Amino acid sequence: MNVFGDKWSFTSFGESHGLAIGGVLDGVPAGLHIDLAMIHEELLRRKGVTDDGVLVTGVSPRAKNEPDEVEWLSGVMDGVTLGTPIAFIIRNKDARPEDYEWLKTTYRVGHADKVYEQKYGIRDWRGGGRASARETASRVVAGGIAKQELLKREIEIKAELVQVGAETNPAKFAEVIAAYRKDGDSIGGIVECRIKGLPVGTGEPIFDKLQAHLAFAVMSINACKGFEYGTGFEGVVKPGSEINAISGGIAGGISDGTEIVFRCVFKPTPSTPKAGVKGRHDACVAVRAVPVVEAMTALSLVQFL
Amino acid sequence: MNVFGDKWSFTSFGESHGLAIGGVLDGVPAGLHIDLAMIHEELLRRKGVTDDGVLVTGVSPRAKNEPDEVEWLSGVMDGVTLGTPIAFIIRNKDARPEDYEWLKTTYRVGHADKVYEQKYGIRDWRGGGRASARETASRVVAGGIAKQELLKREIEIKAELVQVGAETNPAKFAEVIAAYRKDGDSIGGIVECRIKGLPVGTGEPIFDKLQAHLAFAVMSINACKGFEYGTGFEGVVKPGSEINAISGGIAGGISDGTEIVFRCVFKPTPSTPKAGVKGRHDACVAVRAVPVVEAMTALSLVQFL
Amino acid sequence: MNVFGDKWSFTSFGESHGLAIGGVLDGVPAGLHIDLAMIHEELLRRKGVTDDGVLVTGVSPRAKNEPDEVEWLSGVMDGVTLGTPIAFIIRNKDARPEDYEWLKTTYRVGHADKVYEQKYGIRDWRGGGRASARETASRVVAGGIAKQELLKREIEIKAELVQVGAETNPAKFAEVIAAYRKDGDSIGGIVECRIKGLPVGTGEPIFDKLQAHLAFAVMSINACKGFEYGTGFEGVVKPGSEINAISGGIAGGISDGTEIVFRCVFKPTPSTPKAGVKGRHDACVAVRAVPVVEAMTALSLVQFL
Amino acid sequence: MNVFGDKWSFTSFGESHGLAIGGVLDGVPAGLHIDLAMIHEELLRRKGVTDDGVLVTGVSPRAKNEPDEVEWLSGVMDGVTLGTPIAFIIRNKDARPEDYEWLKTTYRVGHADKVYEQKYGIRDWRGGGRASARETASRVVAGGIAKQELLKREIEIKAELVQVGAETNPAKFAEVIAAYRKDGDSIGGIVECRIKGLPVGTGEPIFDKLQAHLAFAVMSINACKGFEYGTGFEGVVKPGSEINAISGGIAGGISDGTEIVFRCVFKPTPSTPKAGVKGRHDACVAVRAVPVVEAMTALSLVQFL
Repeated sequence: MNVFGDKWSFTSFGESHGLAIGGVLDGVPAGLHIDLAMIHEELLRRKGVTDDGVLVTGVSPRAKNEPDEVEWLSGVMDGVTLGTPIAFIIRNKDARPEDYEWLKTTYRVGHADKVYEQKYGIRDWRGGGRASARETASRVVAGGIAKQELLKREIEIKAELVQVGAETNPAKFAEVIAAYRKDGDSIGGIVECRIKGLPVGTGEPIFDKLQAHLAFAVMSINACKGFEYGTGFEGVVKPGSEINAISGGIAGGISDGTEIVFRCVFKPTPSTPKAGVKGRHDACVAVRAVPVVEAMTALSLVQFL
Repeated sequence: MNVFGDKWSFTSFGESHGLAIGGVLDGVPAGLHIDLAMIHEELLRRKGVTDDGVLVTGVSPRAKNEPDEVEWLSGVMDGVTLGTPIAFIIRNKDARPEDYEWLKTTYRVGHADKVYEQKYGIRDWRGGGRASARETASRVVAGGIAKQELLKREIEIKAELVQVGAETNPAKFAEVIAAYRKDGDSIGGIVECRIKGLPVGTGEPIFDKLQAHLAFAVMSINACKGFEYGTGFEGVVKPGSEINAISGGIAGGISDGTEIVFRCVFKPTPSTPKAGVKGRHDACVAVRAVPVVEAMTALSLVQFL
Repeated sequence: MNVFGDKWSFTSFGESHGLAIGGVLDGVPAGLHIDLAMIHEELLRRKGVTDDGVLVTGVSPRAKNEPDEVEWLSGVMDGVTLGTPIAFIIRNKDARPEDYEWLKTTYRVGHADKVYEQKYGIRDWRGGGRASARETASRVVAGGIAKQELLKREIEIKAELVQVGAETNPAKFAEVIAAYRKDGDSIGGIVECRIKGLPVGTGEPIFDKLQAHLAFAVMSINACKGFEYGTGFEGVVKPGSEINAISGGIAGGISDGTEIVFRCVFKPTPSTPKAGVKGRHDACVAVRAVPVVEAMTALSLVQFL
Repeated sequence: MNVFGDKWSFTSFGESHGLAIGGVLDGVPAGLHIDLAMIHEELLRRKGVTDDGVLVTGVSPRAKNEPDEVEWLSGVMDGVTLGTPIAFIIRNKDARPEDYEWLKTTYRVGHADKVYEQKYGIRDWRGGGRASARETASRVVAGGIAKQELLKREIEIKAELVQVGAETNPAKFAEVIAAYRKDGDSIGGIVECRIKGLPVGTGEPIFDKLQAHLAFAVMSINACKGFEYGTGFEGVVKPGSEINAISGGIAGGISDGTEIVFRCVFKPTPSTPKAGVKGRHDACVAVRAVPVVEAMTALSLVQFL
């Protein structure tokens, strides 16, 4: 449901246009010094806004107004974790449900509006409610704490955008995205993530393989359509004699001590002017997915500590 | 660890060259008539042997000798489930650990031999022990029961091999595989799986998205290196205006009532003559992975019933 | 850790003298009308204050000042549940950590102060922190929602105090408690709980027996030292021929359709003037435990719906 | 359902008159030397038979014929655990379902026969099927392994019968039980269990309190009607000033380093000649419950290691 993990158990809550979104992270050991500034920076990355307040190319200008002030309710005293659940909320300022009044009776194509109503019989139509990508802000906060615990153990997670449409030259991503936006359209992207310093032996051999848990974590992100690691899908054309030695950092479900590399693909947003949706949306959601991929990877890895 | 799922909880056990492998499937409702013949057929598919006892191209002749007689220990009375745990074993006939004596001191490239020893400090070197693909026989038995419950509800799962190396014409798969085998080499393949009849509303919106659970189930299969659904990785080059309407059967983590389509890729086996491993191995493990993909898909779906 | 249940998953958070306590209840079906007034009444019962604001005998006057205004953050729209996680907080007004400064260096006898510090290496000394009985307010809120779902299904839970010290006449409880208080001492009590209307078949036959889950839920309440149902401990002196027919509402771990009756015992609070603890404490904590027993019973039962 | 614990996950299976009963214990660390003789002794205690093959007073002579030969299927190589799931079975020799033919159409008073049929719609009437106390043999095997891991860490569990009917003098237990048997009747008993050497800090402060988990484990044993620790139910008559210092080994849900003492009560068996049930049954099931209490305690404690 809305709980991720059983060792570091993260519960996410909140509708995008309700009072607040937030989460509870249970299982964090006592004594961890939380770097709040780092978590704020992660939230800015997720918003698609640089430190100087400049909007990253392709990100909707609406992002700048998205509230991101974290209120820490429990589990931390004088900046240090107590070993008790860490609860936090981000209030939804300026929630204007009336902007979404039209959604009360409309199902957007490519969105979960219709299945939600079919599943629950009731739906919070205000801005996508729980299905809104706004929920990922809570993941980034919790993931930020997880990342800090991992860094303490010298485990580093670094994701980046490696493809936008057919383009694989990062220097040209902004240009490509701008062109799709101008056209009132949107485009997909591929995010690559590298994990360094993970101790040998992380993961379990049968069902709880490390790659299975990473795939689960990443595939739970909105708009993600695929996950691969090591030789991935492209490796299918290569004979064993050529690619046997490429492990992608995992052997038999267990980390082998080398760098782990995986990739995941994000589809274009369906909410575009071309599709008849008013307002300015992200032309390439993969851009803002990068810190969310890192956050979910961190939340997945801490389960194995 | 060795338990999959919490509603239909499947525990797998057994070393490939110990006394037996087997499993316990807990949570199966009372009153299900088990079709034992169907389960035996699934096991044959996994062995790569046709009903007539003919070996499928590319499958190692050793497969024919692999024991597959299921002994049902509990949970079933007169062919009907009792609502109690269903335990079964498959005895390992003709276990000849001496054949594997050389593995006591050797770590095979591309296998989990080394990480196992690093993780556990001890290793069952007899034929790969628990990491052996033989373990998937238990999955096929449990998955067969899950499939029968799904069929009762008119939910159908059908996987097939759609690519071998660069070849996408099924008529030519045998030929391609035979060529790699002749060369003492191996090759990867892509399996596509379709799910029909799944009711709208299956899956949960945030972490427990249907696609995340399917990815988790499939990525737990040995040699699987990637999972994608709907537009997948190839969709990255298409603009939103073209592919918005392709859901792959899932919207916002919840089934939308249309057919679900996903693909997964299997790497070539690293144990080949070219790599210096004696004995005849599968030239394309994706062939025998097909029923395992179906089994894991079934075990994943029954968790949502 | 701080999560109770897996179907209706309740996460509790908050230190007694931090910013707020609260909880997240995940798994509540969509469409339940929440009666907020009823939940407020349950909180008053837990405070030991009547509707008219009068303090129940034996309850510390400090209870009256305890804040109990619930702020609903998510999961409810226009008083109806959305099927998404219900998050709520109760702010800790007037938190005066300086009152507890002395606890920084003192471990109270009969309290968890010392083991907390041994376990976590760090401790929130402000009023008992997480170990404070204040945490049970969150249980009462979540339990109140669970009770409403149960009532909808005509399942009723009713607990009451049936013994204080050696006294079993409810008319005399106030008098007995007052005497202990006057003496600067405290006394234990027994709470009896009855469940009506539970459908036959609730509970699982082996480990997840209904009585095992009820015991788990109730024994997780502060100061509870024992749980019994049906013939209980006193039944030990009776032969089978006399008591065979008394099931206590459960047979083989499964409800049999008759009323379920269980009892639990609460020890006296160790924080008394006689024990050298300043301030006015409850002379009999069992009084205020009654609604908490109901809440935990409700949270336990909804897992089986 | 039939799984106990999530760190050391124990799955129990098997009908009392099916092919076999057994279990799978997952999560046992690699490298533990299993003392098989000790496990056999535990099984003898559970059967109520001394090392010399003499039946303990009050135990049904049928017990002597109960098969108890453990067949180890996996997870152990040369007497040492591999870190993989340990599966074992005990075959049901001489299963004579015809002896139970009369149960096909009869529901025994005080037994789960009727609720099983109501819950599942189907019932294995052969000797109580899954509800039979025979299932506890699997618990004793798994618990024996858990005990050995605990002993390695110098944690000792010792249970004993401390009361039979109104009698608290162990020297007279045999006499009391014999009298009830002679009368065709049965009687209850109280088992006391002591845990020595448990490190400070075991248990979690809120829901997963150590006492809650011990209660859950013990209350899952057939015929157990109550659990108490420390001052228990009798403590209700004592003022705080007298009993504050008695912790029972647990403070705030966490072990405090002193000996843990708990008691549990077992009702008399309802299957007696006096109640019209043919055959010889145990006159006091508490006798044979002693090693089962130890086994469940061990299985509960290993979850916290």
